[in-house]
Amino acid sequence: MNFLDENFLLNTDTARRLYHDVAAGLPIYDYHCHLSPADLACNRRFSDLYEIWLEGDHYKWRAMRANGVDETFITGNADPYDKFLAWARTVPNTLRNPLYQWSHLELRRYFGIDTQLCEETAREIWDEAAQQLKELDSHAILDRFQVALVGTTDDPAEPLDQHALISELKMDTRVYPTFRPDRAFTTKNIRNWNEYLDKLSGVASVTCNDLDGLLQAITVMHDRFARAGSRLSDHSFSHLPDVSYSDEQAELAFAKARNGKELTVGEREGLAMYLLRHTARLDAERGWTKQMHLGVVRNLNTRLFELHGADIGCDSMGDFRQGPGLHRFLDELDRESKLPQTILYNLNPSDNYLFATSLGNYQQGPAPGKMQWGSAWWYLDQKDGMTWQLNALSQLGLLCHFVGMLTDSRSMMSYPRHEYFRRILCGLIGEDAQRGEMPGDFDLLAKLVADVCFNNARAYFGFTLSPRYERAGNVMV
Amino acid sequence: MNFLDENFLLNTDTARRLYHDVAAGLPIYDYHCHLSPADLACNRRFSDLYEIWLEGDHYKWRAMRANGVDETFITGNADPYDKFLAWARTVPNTLRNPLYQWSHLELRRYFGIDTQLCEETAREIWDEAAQQLKELDSHAILDRFQVALVGTTDDPAEPLDQHALISELKMDTRVYPTFRPDRAFTTKNIRNWNEYLDKLSGVASVTCNDLDGLLQAITVMHDRFARAGSRLSDHSFSHLPDVSYSDEQAELAFAKARNGKELTVGEREGLAMYLLRHTARLDAERGWTKQMHLGVVRNLNTRLFELHGADIGCDSMGDFRQGPGLHRFLDELDRESKLPQTILYNLNPSDNYLFATSLGNYQQGPAPGKMQWGSAWWYLDQKDGMTWQLNALSQLGLLCHFVGMLTDSRSMMSYPRHEYFRRILCGLIGEDAQRGEMPGDFDLLAKLVADVCFNNARAYFGFTLSPRYERAGNVMV
Amino acid sequence: MNFLDENFLLNTDTARRLYHDVAAGLPIYDYHCHLSPADLACNRRFSDLYEIWLEGDHYKWRAMRANGVDETFITGNADPYDKFLAWARTVPNTLRNPLYQWSHLELRRYFGIDTQLCEETAREIWDEAAQQLKELDSHAILDRFQVALVGTTDDPAEPLDQHALISELKMDTRVYPTFRPDRAFTTKNIRNWNEYLDKLSGVASVTCNDLDGLLQAITVMHDRFARAGSRLSDHSFSHLPDVSYSDEQAELAFAKARNGKELTVGEREGLAMYLLRHTARLDAERGWTKQMHLGVVRNLNTRLFELHGADIGCDSMGDFRQGPGLHRFLDELDRESKLPQTILYNLNPSDNYLFATSLGNYQQGPAPGKMQWGSAWWYLDQKDGMTWQLNALSQLGLLCHFVGMLTDSRSMMSYPRHEYFRRILCGLIGEDAQRGEMPGDFDLLAKLVADVCFNNARAYFGFTLSPRYERAGNVMV
Repeated sequence: MNFLDENFLLNTDTARRLYHDVAAGLPIYDYHCHLSPADLACNRRFSDLYEIWLEGDHYKWRAMRANGVDETFITGNADPYDKFLAWARTVPNTLRNPLYQWSHLELRRYFGIDTQLCEETAREIWDEAAQQLKELDSHAILDRFQVALVGTTDDPAEPLDQHALISELKMDTRVYPTFRPDRAFTTKNIRNWNEYLDKLSGVASVTCNDLDGLLQAITVMHDRFARAGSRLSDHSFSHLPDVSYSDEQAELAFAKARNGKELTVGEREGLAMYLLRHTARLDAERGWTKQMHLGVVRNLNTRLFELHGADIGCDSMGDFRQGPGLHRFLDELDRESKLPQTILYNLNPSDNYLFATSLGNYQQGPAPGKMQWGSAWWYLDQKDGMTWQLNALSQLGLLCHFVGMLTDSRSMMSYPRHEYFRRILCGLIGEDAQRGEMPGDFDLLAKLVADVCFNNARAYFGFTLSPRYERAGNVMV
Repeated sequence: MNFLDENFLLNTDTARRLYHDVAAGLPIYDYHCHLSPADLACNRRFSDLYEIWLEGDHYKWRAMRANGVDETFITGNADPYDKFLAWARTVPNTLRNPLYQWSHLELRRYFGIDTQLCEETAREIWDEAAQQLKELDSHAILDRFQVALVGTTDDPAEPLDQHALISELKMDTRVYPTFRPDRAFTTKNIRNWNEYLDKLSGVASVTCNDLDGLLQAITVMHDRFARAGSRLSDHSFSHLPDVSYSDEQAELAFAKARNGKELTVGEREGLAMYLLRHTARLDAERGWTKQMHLGVVRNLNTRLFELHGADIGCDSMGDFRQGPGLHRFLDELDRESKLPQTILYNLNPSDNYLFATSLGNYQQGPAPGKMQWGSAWWYLDQKDGMTWQLNALSQLGLLCHFVGMLTDSRSMMSYPRHEYFRRILCGLIGEDAQRGEMPGDFDLLAKLVADVCFNNARAYFGFTLSPRYERAGNVMV
Repeated sequence: MNFLDENFLLNTDTARRLYHDVAAGLPIYDYHCHLSPADLACNRRFSDLYEIWLEGDHYKWRAMRANGVDETFITGNADPYDKFLAWARTVPNTLRNPLYQWSHLELRRYFGIDTQLCEETAREIWDEAAQQLKELDSHAILDRFQVALVGTTDDPAEPLDQHALISELKMDTRVYPTFRPDRAFTTKNIRNWNEYLDKLSGVASVTCNDLDGLLQAITVMHDRFARAGSRLSDHSFSHLPDVSYSDEQAELAFAKARNGKELTVGEREGLAMYLLRHTARLDAERGWTKQMHLGVVRNLNTRLFELHGADIGCDSMGDFRQGPGLHRFLDELDRESKLPQTILYNLNPSDNYLFATSLGNYQQGPAPGKMQWGSAWWYLDQKDGMTWQLNALSQLGLLCHFVGMLTDSRSMMSYPRHEYFRRILCGLIGEDAQRGEMPGDFDLLAKLVADVCFNNARAYFGFTLSPRYERAGNVMV
């Protein structure tokens, strides 16, 4: 087959039919990403491939560093075109890295460009894209890719004013905030935490001078997010510590930290888990879904962190013990009937089987698939990682209730990741059917594909969609 | 290929020939399972698919919970047919889960039913199976599947009276107990442990009021199991703690616990490992094989545990450090020439390579394959897990001496798992041969298959078989 | 396909063309092995297959133990032919183990023998090989396999006299020492360490009675290695402890140990990491490459260790936490601009993704690929392990800058491992191209293959090669 042709990743007839007849036409339900609400509110127009493609993409930055590119052309102040050129020179050296496939898929789907990007073609591709970007603004992109929903990621200490603006737009795409209060839980830098609490106090109009104040501020903001349409919270932890603080312990740790004193590791963990449980109860009470992204170690290159800050491509995965704290957390909430719908994402694939089996212990009706093992994420967000996740989920749980793919992206050019996921999904199912490991009943397989690609997420999260997408996936082949 | 057709999992000509001409006809050597000795002794007849299929199968219960089924229909007191119906509704949603393949394979092999099980077909399948179950009692099942040996799992504080009854039956299947003294090692609940020791004292007619008494009671019961034909012990640990207690330390911990005082974690681990070494020496002296199942975390859902107890499908795998304690345990026994034949099973596939390489350090003649890395188990007991285990064992050890598959099942309907395993094994070998990665010499490959499927286990464990099976695998193609 | 035929491991047309037209003809750059400098200096002639093949190969010894062979025929004093015969009897039982493929590949490539080795063919193969070995001395082997470079592994307390002799030989193969000061870092056995320091003092002519003395002795020997052409250091650790000792702490620990007092685990780790940083700075200053082999647990069978010592096939992999110490080590050196080119090898495949992502945080130009994740090693040095490493490296980094394969071998008969690696590499790339996951552009793929097989290593390490190999890989198809 030719590179990236129409049957890319589809190696059986069943896979091709499943993809082209079922998956390809479904809307996108992008329940978790890092798109900028401001960009969406103002319908940002991008002048060039630097702005829309390179500006914040630390995947590309990492590849450029590995290719020996000077930091000036990565996070530095080189000219945007020169940065793009440095990227174009890097692309041929990413062969077998997903960036090679993603980049060319994105150029095809956004601009119809099927030239291989490299130094020689850089200028021509830059010009062609710039020309097309005059028409292809943010809203046009959401429309073209049939994005039914966008879940952004929002700090509760930030106002929701951009979301308020978005809610007044006439778009078929619904955009909702996700409640991500990481900074309220992070007492490692005690000064930053105190500043954050001051800010949160102001936004929530609740004084956070004791633990009750903080709990109340979190509750107030959770409520405000709910009124803005949110039904999702999200958290990032290296791992969930195996600890349960009592109210008294949490108050003591809070008071100490609020007075500017350093906490011990144990106190930091105890307080963080106490606060996390509080948000979990809020999620459960409101029927929200809680996401937890576990396993990252961040900012591992101190030199670059001090120069350029976080999210620059110097993060990695850890080898933390994930089991004990995870089991404790889920079990305690379950015992008090406050375990919300939960999606867990692990970063180290060595934890795949642990996560997939742990979730199964807390499944509970009436709705199916209450506990979800999230789609392959970050470093796993490629063919191998996705295949492992889909296979492990299939072997250890019920694939048919999986809520499927999200972009997790900072870039408006990542929507083909859904296509990539769908092709992999259809590819796996097609191979199984061809080998007689699944029935060849096309309707059965088509329902599975449509459910994982769209219908499950719509039913699971319960967001309000626009009429265009409200019944989209229901029309079955 | 059609779903589950005769060449299911057999994708090459060599694989097909190996399976149909060699593997399919071999008897089953089921050296480890959880069948009820009482059911076998009385030749239990099952009225319906609930009794024979759902009654104790926590794999199915987990799947039903993930499908949103209410607990009433799982472990609750709903009508048996309604429970079966809830299962039938779940089955189509298990696509790509091994339960989908296993369930339909079992319906075919036991009842010749090749209808897909779902809500619509539930009644018809229920009735047909009930009709056939009038003839298909426990002994008929063992006979049909050519089960040469069944190794049950038995607590030494329980009498062996059912095994005594079985030994007087005229069956071609030999049934022997396995010595599993987990409760003697478990001092976490000090009251339960003391009650257990009282019970063990009574059965063994040895007073367990000091450590010597307990060691003696264990020895007495080990001997009684030996006289009942046993040649196997079995243990379940989350991991083997990295500790070696002296006699004095063990006596102190024992005395403390026997006086009803809580032990520290260190004391619990030290005492448990001390007792485990004692049974290992007994195993070595008698030429038994020791099995150790490592890596489980049990009863993770406290709510359901308090309602329904253990073994209800709320167990998971841990991320324990397995290496240090395992190496210490094996090395110390090896140094005193008391390391028995050993089969180790790990639950988290992340430990596969650790286990497979650790065992290699203690291989020792004259017999080949003294140290065995056990067949893929529990959550790994499916195509991916078995493939990983067979491949890792092949790469890191000698596949040709592998003692192969066991059911580990609580259900009389699990014998097709051996078929499943054999198809996977033949499939892998066939692919290798077709690609020129193994020689195409059929006799060589056939011997490998026959040895792993039956002959190795017969030679390794040394149980007495009935005449029907004593020379079964020797007739080579 | 027939076993080991010319297209072994090459299942697509592209793979075949890539291997036969590009990879097969490239010289071998064996930058890390354990060949004996003395054997190379004297152009050792081997009388028979025992000497050249079995004498020091603990892979084979492990397989023989698993096959039930008595230790007399492994590390004992049986007759060389009888040891070979025990190996020949074992070979058919290694089916699916890489030894089966390696052994037959080696017999073909060294002696043109394509008979399967087994008891019946043992004598004939022994005689034929002995006949041919009269001509096939060490230098003839290096010449036949086009070995451009051999990096041996050398203790800085040993004189470099064999390397001095080698440097005067007229060989096309360049042979350089690698600086491996493990024993200077190992204070577990305090008497051995002190003896080692005395020896090092003598060789380096620097008194090691305080920490500065040891640092200086290390520096002196590093310099002497550099003058002997070395550009590589190497270290073996179970894991890098997460600790950074100050000068004062290191001095205290050194003084305590030098006075013969046992160090605590913390002190041992602190001192070892302090010394490792010192060598890293030396490596960085001289433009050397530092290799670190992480994850082994050695000498796990005490009985055999006491009889036969180390390196006898009783080593395994651990389940250490690798992340924290690794990140600390790399980050601290990077901050002081003293992070050398580094190759990290992990032994437990569960750590693959951790290692592959951690390295990416410290990539830095101007040269590409500064941080390398080393080729699959020891227990991973087979088709599965290599495939995982190549795939993970591809997904998480830039394959095109990979420095590729090394033998890591103690035997002169291991050069076909490069062929084995190259076939696997071409096989993977060929499959990707055939499925349209990579472009079919042959020149692009050929460059990738040639770079990974030879050109990258030559550029990365910067050793001086002989004229025959200096421009070998540059001639592109």
